[in-house]
This record gives sequence, structure tokens and C-alpha cells, in this order.
Amino acid sequence: MSANRVKAVYLIETPYTLERAAEVIAGEQSTGTFTAVPGETDLLKEKHAARVESIEELEAAGVPTLPGSKTPQGHDGRYRRGLVTVSFPLHNFGPSIPNLMSAVAGNLYELQELSGIRLVDLELPDDFAARYPGPKFGIEGTRRLTGVYGRPILGTIVKPSIGLAMEDLQRMITDVSAAGLDFIKDDELNANPPYAPLELKVKSVMEAVERAADATGKKIMYAFNITGDIEEMKRNHDLVVKASGNCVMVSILSVGLAGLAHLNSYSEVPIHGHRNQWGMLTRCPMLGIEFAAYQKLCRLAGADHLHVNGLNSKFYESNESVVRSIEACTAPMYGGYAAMPVVSSAQWAGTAPATYAATKTVDVMHLAGGGILAHPAGPAAGFESMKLGWEAAVKGIPLEEYAELHPSLKQAIAKYGNGKG
Amino acid sequence: MSANRVKAVYLIETPYTLERAAEVIAGEQSTGTFTAVPGETDLLKEKHAARVESIEELEAAGVPTLPGSKTPQGHDGRYRRGLVTVSFPLHNFGPSIPNLMSAVAGNLYELQELSGIRLVDLELPDDFAARYPGPKFGIEGTRRLTGVYGRPILGTIVKPSIGLAMEDLQRMITDVSAAGLDFIKDDELNANPPYAPLELKVKSVMEAVERAADATGKKIMYAFNITGDIEEMKRNHDLVVKASGNCVMVSILSVGLAGLAHLNSYSEVPIHGHRNQWGMLTRCPMLGIEFAAYQKLCRLAGADHLHVNGLNSKFYESNESVVRSIEACTAPMYGGYAAMPVVSSAQWAGTAPATYAATKTVDVMHLAGGGILAHPAGPAAGFESMKLGWEAAVKGIPLEEYAELHPSLKQAIAKYGNGKG
Repeated sequence: MSANRVKAVYLIETPYTLERAAEVIAGEQSTGTFTAVPGETDLLKEKHAARVESIEELEAAGVPTLPGSKTPQGHDGRYRRGLVTVSFPLHNFGPSIPNLMSAVAGNLYELQELSGIRLVDLELPDDFAARYPGPKFGIEGTRRLTGVYGRPILGTIVKPSIGLAMEDLQRMITDVSAAGLDFIKDDELNANPPYAPLELKVKSVMEAVERAADATGKKIMYAFNITGDIEEMKRNHDLVVKASGNCVMVSILSVGLAGLAHLNSYSEVPIHGHRNQWGMLTRCPMLGIEFAAYQKLCRLAGADHLHVNGLNSKFYESNESVVRSIEACTAPMYGGYAAMPVVSSAQWAGTAPATYAATKTVDVMHLAGGGILAHPAGPAAGFESMKLGWEAAVKGIPLEEYAELHPSLKQAIAKYGNGKG
Repeated sequence: MSANRVKAVYLIETPYTLERAAEVIAGEQSTGTFTAVPGETDLLKEKHAARVESIEELEAAGVPTLPGSKTPQGHDGRYRRGLVTVSFPLHNFGPSIPNLMSAVAGNLYELQELSGIRLVDLELPDDFAARYPGPKFGIEGTRRLTGVYGRPILGTIVKPSIGLAMEDLQRMITDVSAAGLDFIKDDELNANPPYAPLELKVKSVMEAVERAADATGKKIMYAFNITGDIEEMKRNHDLVVKASGNCVMVSILSVGLAGLAHLNSYSEVPIHGHRNQWGMLTRCPMLGIEFAAYQKLCRLAGADHLHVNGLNSKFYESNESVVRSIEACTAPMYGGYAAMPVVSSAQWAGTAPATYAATKTVDVMHLAGGGILAHPAGPAAGFESMKLGWEAAVKGIPLEEYAELHPSLKQAIAKYGNGKG
């Protein structure tokens, strides 16, 4: 591909031919009005038109997925599906994530010529790397700050997610630090609420973190949820850094990719990227965006950690899709931009083997709420069971077999595994 | 409703009972983990739990709309649909749009208990009004700046949207100003691209605008697309204001609601809110957000103008849905927050009567690209035909009848109306 073009791959469904639909997509995102206007010269089109690069036909559907498509005269009742690659001249919008989105997504989702459209991949020229420096810490920086090598970073989430009193939160940090955990994060529902202002929380949490670090010799990484309005986020970030905090978290869809990039312009600690609301953009298989495309934008904008759900989670997403997300996040971009995939939701020791078998990487964060905290023998045993789950996975030893040697793992299987492990 | 609760209305589809699904929604957005954890006391739940306020059953479906739902034992094969109202204590997150979204949207779209979920309305306590001042100009301020009363603000879009040379753009402004237009905007595809840097565009455009204003006595409102990264937007805005520009435009989904609210914190001219990418969030009828809910957030965050598509547009959206959007945008919030709905896409004089008949308001911007610029007798006749279309609509005179007295309207019907008008 020419170095000065953006390439976007779409999964589409159309009552027209794929060729016609692809041309409409390319046209809509260059000169787009319903009747020819003066000034639309051939030279201008040559310089600025989006171009259909390739079309791969897939099996057609008998009914339209999305409402509102029109049909051509003599429509045969089939809705053709295919993968369409369209390239856009970078100079149409420049290396700007916000304006890239207006070009590669823009009005496309509303076209009558389509009964389905999903952005499944993006290829971006190097100019984006020059403008967006990406994660400052990524996998390596997070390992350096936590001192964890050779296995996933293991952690948990503050629970209950809402309403915990400061002294209970402090006790929890003391407990999970004593248990040896690497990481703990605020729930996405809990940022800077009136009943627990972030300023107070930072003070309380960091007191507990430092005190526990003095006792154990290991400072847990705490991701403070600083999600908020643009200037509030800066204040929140500064509060965390001033108190020697070592991680901030944002709900990426709440602050926007522009908000994330702005945070990354001044951040001094890793950015833990939560993707709540993401389902809205992806659960309809013929609409929205595939995470493989979206995660590139999150990494460009500076996410050091990036949530991807987990295998066998409580959510709708298939394991195959979760695995694709982990692989996408760990594939290099511009030779770098490493972000750590965060595997979470209904996780416990027993989800480690399948995760490792499918991805062959330990460069993930693996978070368990109940899966650590509600372990029958306490959080320390919960943490140990998680480590053992990964050990078994990497060594290729069946979990039940490994559990025979390790009571904490055996207890975890008994509690969470329904006998399956 | 209690003044300190946020109320969210969802259209849901579920293989479970509506009651069970509603409880899962409320639960997920308060303590949410897959196994009970210590500290989740009854007192805490009472203070912080989301509450199911009402359930209205609709007709069930025989197949699930979205993939990945699980079914209860003995599932009868029906996917129940209904409107579910859930209220959230405001103190769980405070009057913060980003954190509101994590609460009312959050992980809900990924739940296995649902095969469809769409946020259809939001009711927000006054505390949001105290934090977000909303549009500084709105309908009244836009009328004051343009000097247009008693009819819609009529305008057009710079076309071709990409690649126009500065001298051609200047000529276009001269032409549309001479034609008497009230308003012109950049295309959403064109913000600050390398081939036409905003700084140069602002200079060129404002030269032409001021020169035309000297000649005609009326200064056209030009919405400069300043979409970009957070600090770039501030620089772009300041460029426009310094050059005596009178409007800025942003792609709301590109900059995020947080980006929009930030712009509104310093903006000195009306903010023209473009909603490209919106289809992604709304085209699947059982997923995403209904515009009636989303437009409230846009207005809170400060959009003075808000795109709503148009009747009989080139897009998939039904006329009924467009009408609902116009009505939603013009309904008062907190007794104010007036934003002007922007009706556009394949518009011309002939779309005025249906728009007025359905909405009974002239408080809209009505934009036509080809519908004005490609009028057979030129842009002045195109503009005149648009005014005549609205005159006929308000007077209740059939368009064809009015066209008998007005050649520009007759020509418009001949060109764009396919004889129907």
C-alpha cells in the first residue's frame, strides 16, 4: 500500500452488487452530495477520491440485517456480503484520529445502499505515529513498575464497586497487598463521586498502599479511575501523581479517543484503558467496529492497558472473539505501541489454561474479582491459585493434576469450576 | 421522580422474564461481580443500588436480535421485549457526563441475559444543569447573529467537500453571500487537512465573508470545522474568533461529549454539532442509543446546533425518526438548553412542507447542498426556492400551487421533485 493512504477494511451487506456498494462507500467519503455540483473536476477526484482496493465475496443473506436499505430495481432478494477494502488519501484529513474517524466511519453507517457495515480493520501510515506517541509504559513499563516478570500481572477490582467506606477500602488494600497481588483497580462505576471524592480516596488509598509496601516490600499498582471531563481529568491525574500513585484508569468511551490522547500528552503513570460501553459499538455483527480496528486507535491515543473481556466471561462475547482481541493488542504497531491486554470478567485460576492455550502469551493482566477475593481460604490463596493456574498452563500440565499438589488451586476448582476446572 | 436520581429508559429483549432482566441491569450497574463478595451489606445496597421503576411489556420476538445471549432452563423460545425504566442514585457518580455514561450504558450492552438493549431516554436531575451550562447561543443567539427571524435559517455546505482550492472556496462564499444565504458550513470531511490548513482557510474565508458583507450588508454565518485533538480544537477555535468568524463546527462523536463540553467551556461563537458516526450507535433497532436520549447529552455539553438528518434523505433513517429527533431537540430541558436542529441530506425546497407539517416549527436550520447550489437558475434562485418552500408550508398552500406564482420554486420542483414536489 502506498505510504500516504489509510486503508480501511469493511464487512458489508448490501442489496446491490458488492462493487456498486463499495463505490458508494468510497464516493460518500469524498465528494458526497446527491446531485453533481460545479467544481467537482476530474483532477480533484484523482487527487482526493477514496479508492476501492479489493473486494472479497462472502456468503449472501436472504434478509437484511439492518433496517432502512433500499433495493435496486429487479432485486433478486439476496443481500450480498463481503469484505471491502477502501483506501483514503492521508492528505484528505491528515494524521488526526478525530478526523480519521469522520472519514473512515462518518456517514457510512447510515447509507441506504447498505444493510450492514462494520469497520473490521485499519491500516494507518507512519504519520500517525509521528503525531501520536502511544503508550509511555506499555507491557515493559508496567512490568518494571510492578516488578513482575515471566507471568501475567495478576490483580483484582475494588468490590463492592460502589459505596465502600474509606476504611473498608483501606482494609481491602492492606489485605490484597498482604496477599501479594500485583495490581488493583477501581471499578468503572466509581471515579470521583460525591460520597467518595477522588481527593479523599487518593489520600486514603495511598496511605494504605505505602503502609502495605513498607510491610511487604512490594508496592501494589493501584489504577485510580480518573474518568471525567477534560480539565477534571488533568486535576485528577495530578492528584494521583502527587500522592505517588502509580496508575490511572479511564473509561475510553466516556472520555473519547481525543480525551485519551489528551491525557496521554501529560500523563506520568500508566493509563489503564477500560472499554465499558464498547458493546454498543460491536455487538451487532453487521454494524459498528471490530475490536481489532478500535484497539489500534486506543493504542495510538496512549492506552497502556486495554480491557478485552475474558474467556468464559459473564458477557456475550465468544471466546474466539476475546482471543482475537488479545492477539490484536499484542501485535506490534509501528514496531511498538505495546499495550497490555486486560483479561477480566468472571475470571479465576481455571480460565488461565484456555487463555494461554489460545494466545501463547503471558503478557496480559489477568483480573479476578470474586475469583480471588472470595476464595475459600482468603485472597492470598486466591492469588496463589491464579499463579498456579498460569504455571500449569505454561508447563502444559492439566489443571486438576496440578491441583493435586496445590490445595489453593484445588479449592478454587471446587468453588468456581463446577468440577470442570 | 426523586430529584437525586437519574432515570434511564431501555428498550430490551431477553430470553428471561422482563423482571429478571431488569434486575440484572440494575444489579450489573451497582455491585456487579459473578459471586458475592464481603462488604456488600444491605445498607450499602439500599444507599447505592439502582432500582427498577417500571416495566412495560411489548410484543415478543421468536428469534434473538443480537448474538451471545444465554437461555434459562426450559426456555420457551420467546425473546420478550419491553421498556424498562431504571433509576440510579445520582450520588453514585455525580453530575458528570462521562461517568453517567459508564453507569447508564457501561457493560449493559454485553450482558448474556439480554439479546437486545437500547437506551431510549434519560431524565437527569438539575445538578447536571449546574455543572454543564449548555448552549451559549442556541436558537435565539443564532437568530441574533444571523438576523433571521420567522423562518428557518437556510444554508448550504461547502462542496466539493474535499479538495477545493482557496480561490474557489472564496468564489463560492462570494456567490452564496450574494445569493443571500444565511449560513454555510464546512463538510465534516474537511477540518484542518494538510492541503488546506485551517489557518489559511480561516484567512481566505473571512476575507471573502467580510468583503461580501460589505457589499450585501449581511454577514453570512460560516461554520468552520474545527474538529481535532483537544488542544488543537482550542487553537482552531481561537483562530476563528480572532478572525471575527461567527461559528465553529465539530463532529461530536469524533471529539466525544467530554471534548464538546470542553470546547463549550471557552467557546465564544455558536457550536455547530455534526453527528457523523452516529449511525453506528443507532441503526440496529435493538442496540445502542435513541437520539432522543443522546441529544440531551449533546445539549448539556453545549451544542448550539445539532444535526438530525432530513426527511426523504439519502440515509436509511425513517421520516418518523427524523421528526422525533427534531421534536426532541426543540423540547425544553431545564427550561432552556435550546439547540437548533439541523435538517440536512438531500434537502431542497420540496422537503420543507413535510418537515413543517410534521414538526410545526420553523426553529430549524435547513441545509441544502445540490438543492441550492445546483438550482438551474443559480444559488440565488435556489435560496429563494427554499424560502418559498417554507412560506408555502407555513401558509398551508400546496407547493405546486405556490410554484405557479414563483418560477424559482417551479424550477426546483422540475429538477429535484420528479414531478411530485
